[in-house]
Amino acid sequence: MRIFREPARLQKWARRQKLAGRKIALVPTMGYLHEGHLSLIETARAKGADEIVVSVFVNPVQFCPGEDYEKYPRDEKADLAKCRAAGATAVFFPTPANMYLDRHSVYVEEDDLSKGLCGARRPGHFRGVCTVVAKLFNLAHPDFAVFGQKDYQQAQVIRRMVRDLNFDLQIVVAPIVREPSGLARSSRNTYLSESEREKALAISRGLFALKGEAAKAPGGLPARSSLARLAKSLSRAGLEVDYVECVDAETLEPSSRVCKGSCVLVAAYDGRTRLIDNVLV
Amino acid sequence: MRIFREPARLQKWARRQKLAGRKIALVPTMGYLHEGHLSLIETARAKGADEIVVSVFVNPVQFCPGEDYEKYPRDEKADLAKCRAAGATAVFFPTPANMYLDRHSVYVEEDDLSKGLCGARRPGHFRGVCTVVAKLFNLAHPDFAVFGQKDYQQAQVIRRMVRDLNFDLQIVVAPIVREPSGLARSSRNTYLSESEREKALAISRGLFALKGEAAKAPGGLPARSSLARLAKSLSRAGLEVDYVECVDAETLEPSSRVCKGSCVLVAAYDGRTRLIDNVLV
Repeated sequence: MRIFREPARLQKWARRQKLAGRKIALVPTMGYLHEGHLSLIETARAKGADEIVVSVFVNPVQFCPGEDYEKYPRDEKADLAKCRAAGATAVFFPTPANMYLDRHSVYVEEDDLSKGLCGARRPGHFRGVCTVVAKLFNLAHPDFAVFGQKDYQQAQVIRRMVRDLNFDLQIVVAPIVREPSGLARSSRNTYLSESEREKALAISRGLFALKGEAAKAPGGLPARSSLARLAKSLSRAGLEVDYVECVDAETLEPSSRVCKGSCVLVAAYDGRTRLIDNVLV
Repeated sequence: MRIFREPARLQKWARRQKLAGRKIALVPTMGYLHEGHLSLIETARAKGADEIVVSVFVNPVQFCPGEDYEKYPRDEKADLAKCRAAGATAVFFPTPANMYLDRHSVYVEEDDLSKGLCGARRPGHFRGVCTVVAKLFNLAHPDFAVFGQKDYQQAQVIRRMVRDLNFDLQIVVAPIVREPSGLARSSRNTYLSESEREKALAISRGLFALKGEAAKAPGGLPARSSLARLAKSLSRAGLEVDYVECVDAETLEPSSRVCKGSCVLVAAYDGRTRLIDNVLV
């Protein structure tokens, strides 16, 4: 497994692989890898990639002031071992200084899908995501890139970026990986105390319950009352709801019904930890 | 010579050329080709390109409200003939509708070099330029792209975009091509009446005179008084000065002296036609 730290080295290598006709997959991560990330690597392999590049970069530009950029968990050694075990063929560990050179001044902005949900609560977040992902695409020359469904809005924003900037690659979205309890795997779960972990279960339970009910009801359920009930159940469990929304799974526009083709998304604070989760109905 | 109208077709072809190890040059233009453009094609050939892709697209997104988007001159048939004669191997004629799909929402912004000069007078212009050029890079897979020095700020902004988004290609900037009178070649010269053409000569004359004086003076000339004189000469000739500036040729920051490493730039209205020109000192 190759380890790259310099963007130019990765690019040169990727260019050579590409010219040799090898199929490259990119798995962009912020590290502190868990089973969710490993499933993305597994997906890349299942899709027939000859080279699987995992990038591990806590991207400062996608954190807002006051967020957890400094304390975001990092463990390079463990990440390396996990990448190797999962079948990655290259790992890219850049530094903020070599990704954002002196007087860095170019950003990619998405103006539609990134306005609501997490974008409304985290100003500049998706600008940071789009910018770093565009850079990674240009550095790793992937034939396809794999993202997790847990960051549903992110996956849709990236798809739109690929379409609108004509990136010559495919986006693959892999399903959410959950702990046996139902909790969506996240590097940020490491912040949770035992009691917070217990509270967090209300999120996946509430989402699954709503999805189940909506599937049984012909034409789905009215969104407003269903979301109000879901929000109430989260509050009752001791979480502070950031948002509970039901949107069209493609356009991310608010949907008046929880029904086929919609996505229900939750963001909630569990103590000081912000958790997100979603279900496609 | 191949003619592409569909972005996906160009991309598929370019991808194949790239995989076959052929060196691709891109020459982005807005068409109505003149000797300036042809010199860019010539430069691409001299640099050893196997394939020279000329894009001809009057990009609506880089025009501001009230500018000349609708009346910008177009002549597809003449452009095709000129591309063929100059040695282009492919021409790309997209339409606004196939470059900007329904709900297009992703833009590339440069926040530093594009703030002054034309960027200050044409809000959104460089956002439009960066966005379309990023798209063209992804569609044509160039090893290098050739831009003209006449749009000096544009060339610097694009260089910065390539650096900051890690595009895997080189930017080549070719010198300004002038009519025998000294007037910088521009598709917009077609707007000029005979008397306006006469007035326009004050721009290149003034720039050359200043460059000549600055080259003779040890340490160059003070910018403020030199630029004031230049502006006055343009006004006296009947032009309406938009800006006359001297900047550091790399950072585009205002330079206090007209000296080696600086660039003097002019934008002026000649009747209703906005002309730009510059000299590197």
